[in-house]
Amino acid sequence: MSQTASPPQAFRAIDVIRKKRDAGELSQPEIEFLVREYTSGEIPDYQVSAWLMAVLLRGMTRAETAWLTDAMLHSGEVLDLSSLSATKVDKHSTGGVGDKTSLILAPLVAAAGVAVPMISGRGLGHTGGTLDKLESIPGFNVNLSTSQFRRVLETCGCAMIGQTAEIAPADRKLYALRDVTGTVESPYLICASIMSKKLAEGIDALVLDVKTGSGAFMKTEKDAAFLAELMVETGERMGKQMVALITDMDEPLGNMIGNALEVVEVVEVLRGRGPEDLRNLCIELAGWMLHLGGACPTVAEGRQKTEELIASGKALEKFRYMVELQGGDPRAIDNTERLPKAPNTMEITSAGGGYVASWQCESVGTACVILGGGRERKEDSVDPAVGIVLHKKVGDRVSPGESLATVYYNAEARASQAKRLLEKSYQVTDSPHVDKRPLIHRVIRKSGDIN
Amino acid sequence: MSQTASPPQAFRAIDVIRKKRDAGELSQPEIEFLVREYTSGEIPDYQVSAWLMAVLLRGMTRAETAWLTDAMLHSGEVLDLSSLSATKVDKHSTGGVGDKTSLILAPLVAAAGVAVPMISGRGLGHTGGTLDKLESIPGFNVNLSTSQFRRVLETCGCAMIGQTAEIAPADRKLYALRDVTGTVESPYLICASIMSKKLAEGIDALVLDVKTGSGAFMKTEKDAAFLAELMVETGERMGKQMVALITDMDEPLGNMIGNALEVVEVVEVLRGRGPEDLRNLCIELAGWMLHLGGACPTVAEGRQKTEELIASGKALEKFRYMVELQGGDPRAIDNTERLPKAPNTMEITSAGGGYVASWQCESVGTACVILGGGRERKEDSVDPAVGIVLHKKVGDRVSPGESLATVYYNAEARASQAKRLLEKSYQVTDSPHVDKRPLIHRVIRKSGDIN
Repeated sequence: MSQTASPPQAFRAIDVIRKKRDAGELSQPEIEFLVREYTSGEIPDYQVSAWLMAVLLRGMTRAETAWLTDAMLHSGEVLDLSSLSATKVDKHSTGGVGDKTSLILAPLVAAAGVAVPMISGRGLGHTGGTLDKLESIPGFNVNLSTSQFRRVLETCGCAMIGQTAEIAPADRKLYALRDVTGTVESPYLICASIMSKKLAEGIDALVLDVKTGSGAFMKTEKDAAFLAELMVETGERMGKQMVALITDMDEPLGNMIGNALEVVEVVEVLRGRGPEDLRNLCIELAGWMLHLGGACPTVAEGRQKTEELIASGKALEKFRYMVELQGGDPRAIDNTERLPKAPNTMEITSAGGGYVASWQCESVGTACVILGGGRERKEDSVDPAVGIVLHKKVGDRVSPGESLATVYYNAEARASQAKRLLEKSYQVTDSPHVDKRPLIHRVIRKSGDIN
Repeated sequence: MSQTASPPQAFRAIDVIRKKRDAGELSQPEIEFLVREYTSGEIPDYQVSAWLMAVLLRGMTRAETAWLTDAMLHSGEVLDLSSLSATKVDKHSTGGVGDKTSLILAPLVAAAGVAVPMISGRGLGHTGGTLDKLESIPGFNVNLSTSQFRRVLETCGCAMIGQTAEIAPADRKLYALRDVTGTVESPYLICASIMSKKLAEGIDALVLDVKTGSGAFMKTEKDAAFLAELMVETGERMGKQMVALITDMDEPLGNMIGNALEVVEVVEVLRGRGPEDLRNLCIELAGWMLHLGGACPTVAEGRQKTEELIASGKALEKFRYMVELQGGDPRAIDNTERLPKAPNTMEITSAGGGYVASWQCESVGTACVILGGGRERKEDSVDPAVGIVLHKKVGDRVSPGESLATVYYNAEARASQAKRLLEKSYQVTDSPHVDKRPLIHRVIRKSGDIN
């Protein structure tokens, strides 16, 4: 453990650590040095973890956050999609339970002529992942090479894959270190992690869906807004069109939770049906994507265009085409009975009558993990066929003995455990005046002075 | 980098890190877990460095500091000197330039019947080390085994050795990590590091000499007092008699800087001569050691006893005896001309006349390192024969062309470089009213509420 472990450089890791420890603002070359030398293995983990803790406790300026994002972005490949004439737009969500908006938005926005090059993640803990949901469609391949990805994108206007080894390697290394050193929670580090991966897609604009509530990473609206404004400003500093919507994650989004079940609900929404909250959120997010992507002069026109594309069936058609191009069976879209579905069901019934006052989001997500539909550890595999369908959401009336939810399961023991958890995860009240939270809390278009 | 790297335990490192990050107070079992598992290699460096940074920025309570000290102390061997009937007392200094008090205090206090089992360190950077000074005495062996150490102590009442591999291994590992992660400066970590090593000596009482001023680690009196009170309270919590003196290190202590030269000055003081500042500080520290060691009912009587032991020659005799028992040549004490001495000298003369206003302590120490008398890196060897003798201290009158200091050197090139540095390290002023700082700033006997 010697300071000569660092190579001869204009900077020394120890000085960069000390400067941040003493609440100083790091320069762009200092941040570039740290990210570059850490990624190449010249600076050891133990120095970077001390620096990460100093960042968590001292914070970063907006300039530092943008420089860190930029350094992480350029630690790997940045897709060059300039050969595509269409504007490239993406959406990123901070994650929640029942959030299947990506699968709806990609084809919906592409149907309006705006390209959506979407790189997504897998589920971990109580939240699901876009890749796991897509893989419940028989044959669907999320592991395309960069050239295959580009070809699908050029052919149908949208493509959905997982992160490749070439994209933001600094983020992968830093994230693994943050995970074991108590430094995951810093909004500055979260911002740089998200933005470096998203900007590697070569996009022109980004719509952020920052969740708040009991099921979200950011429990309070204040924390969610802080992160949202940080990401909006970081993107703008890097020349991107940005907007963030602070949306609710106090109860699950939509009615279906579980991989194949969520694809069923995606198809429902693309057919003009599906639950109101999910449909409304998708229309709002798509409206912004079309507006920032230059397809519509206002967000209102973007929403209207979105509704037309659903009504005309063009959005569903686009989804079917993307599934086909990525090796999936399009007949599973035409008839969702072809998707995997667990053979056994179990009802969660309400003891008393009244109004649903709450659905504890994390518990519902965890119940789905217990069924086998999610991961406790990264290396776990998921069961696409299991899940939960909610029949009553917050504010809905329920009679004694009526079913609140149906559990789809493969293993009896897991189902009993999930049932016990679900039975503790809702509240029914006598009063019809339950606190139904708004779906969209705030829209953050341009960051002000929030420090 | 998986959290399963930690063994199955009641605690997880990540939770201890998070608790300190969020400004919580750790429990004694949590601190014991962290120190034990880090020392054994179960918890990796990268988790402990994040924890160290959290401690630096969040601080620790007094209880946590004592628990950390205790855990580090018990990571290795604690000497059991209960077979010695005498009370065991030691002194620790936070280090400075020209500070050779340990070599005077050990025989002086032992001559009064109080045992001094002293474990010291080597010089690093601009400050010298007790072991290097002792080794300038031909034959002197600082690497005694524990049983040899005990035998010397039983025979003459004092013994001086270096840290063994068995003492506080947790501190060695933690210090090396702090050194490269910007976490050296935390007073809580400094306290635990010093106290764990000192308490491993099996002592009953400890006198702390906490330096303040330009040449000290703690530049301000406020910082020095904070560290001093922390160490006093930590020692008291562990059942030890404690006192801390905040003493000046704005100019070098005594007149001689360099290993053999400092031994010469030690012998001078033990002969009742030597510079006033060094003699006074030794009498004050010895007075406290005798008082805390139960040999004198008051500190004033301790001082008086100290002066008697110097005047009677008993202190010098004790030093000579210890040198002999540890393999050193006692004739070098009888006649210090037998100590190594560089053959060449160079004078630093004052351009103008007036009064010495300051001696830049760090520069004088660094000049000695340049001559070869100290270490820039741990693996460097030292030249015992070189050094600097100051003829004028702050407040002294000087005529134009008069010598301020003599440089003793072996290599011409090093001497020229040291000379240039020394010429820039003093100031001479017209006014006789120079700001002569007090030698002893404060005495801290029992910690109050200083948080």
